[in-house]
Amino acid sequence: MPYPSHTFDDLEPGARFEAGPRRITREDIAAFADLSGDHTALHTDEEFARTTPLGGLVAHGVLTLAIATGLTHAMGFLNGTILAFREMTTRFDRPVRPGDEVSVTLTVASKDSSPRPGRGRVVFDVALRNQEGRTVLSGRWELLLRRSETPSAG
Amino acid sequence: MPYPSHTFDDLEPGARFEAGPRRITREDIAAFADLSGDHTALHTDEEFARTTPLGGLVAHGVLTLAIATGLTHAMGFLNGTILAFREMTTRFDRPVRPGDEVSVTLTVASKDSSPRPGRGRVVFDVALRNQEGRTVLSGRWELLLRRSETPSAG
Repeated sequence: MPYPSHTFDDLEPGARFEAGPRRITREDIAAFADLSGDHTALHTDEEFARTTPLGGLVAHGVLTLAIATGLTHAMGFLNGTILAFREMTTRFDRPVRPGDEVSVTLTVASKDSSPRPGRGRVVFDVALRNQEGRTVLSGRWELLLRRSETPSAG
Repeated sequence: MPYPSHTFDDLEPGARFEAGPRRITREDIAAFADLSGDHTALHTDEEFARTTPLGGLVAHGVLTLAIATGLTHAMGFLNGTILAFREMTTRFDRPVRPGDEVSVTLTVASKDSSPRPGRGRVVFDVALRNQEGRTVLSGRWELLLRRSETPSAG
């Protein structure tokens, strides 16, 4: 990484893109609590978090999702071609703790040249893994991407 | 709002909770770009964003999702009873621009007393709407909540 920019036409099912690792810090978690407004004690109160089954602070699930999108941006392969995020499914598989280092993998699951000329939908399988290689977040992202200037099908 | 705290046992399908509005600012968008690492030009480069079909800066979809979780925290009804976010589906229905004011509604869609004693799964339909009442984000959240200390079914 970074990869070259990819249009809708450049991507085929099975194509795979990776980025990371990024270390998640206590400061990231505190900044996310302030920005989102989610001050749930498990994310913000270390003393309380130690008394829970998780045994300490964990990152907000949506912070880990945000970091997956940021790592994806850093890959570069959607630069100038991404038009929109349409839909996401997200499963929070395992807790992420301060100090964990996460990496993301996107794999093209399917593509569809609708809904309008000049663009197409691409569905990616997404996995965020920690430093032990265990999946902490998994899901699917449906993105709208530009087509190449002169698509082969006219 | 805030609402009193609700356990799994206190929630029935159709129960509805609301919070907002919160105004989304340019500063929120810049802070999210820095925290997530997603510096896509549509969110960070006003001059570029003006040349796009959207005609100006828009918030990252995952920022609007983060704000929906923060508004939900502020409702108070999950305080002390939420154990985990399990899964989310998220559809980004309309762009959110700096200055927009968003409000969230959660409606209980279903509940299920598995997987373990002392807890249960609750699925909420989620909608984030702008100041014109138009839906900007919609989805479903599956949460794990504590049960009441002495569940009626023993």
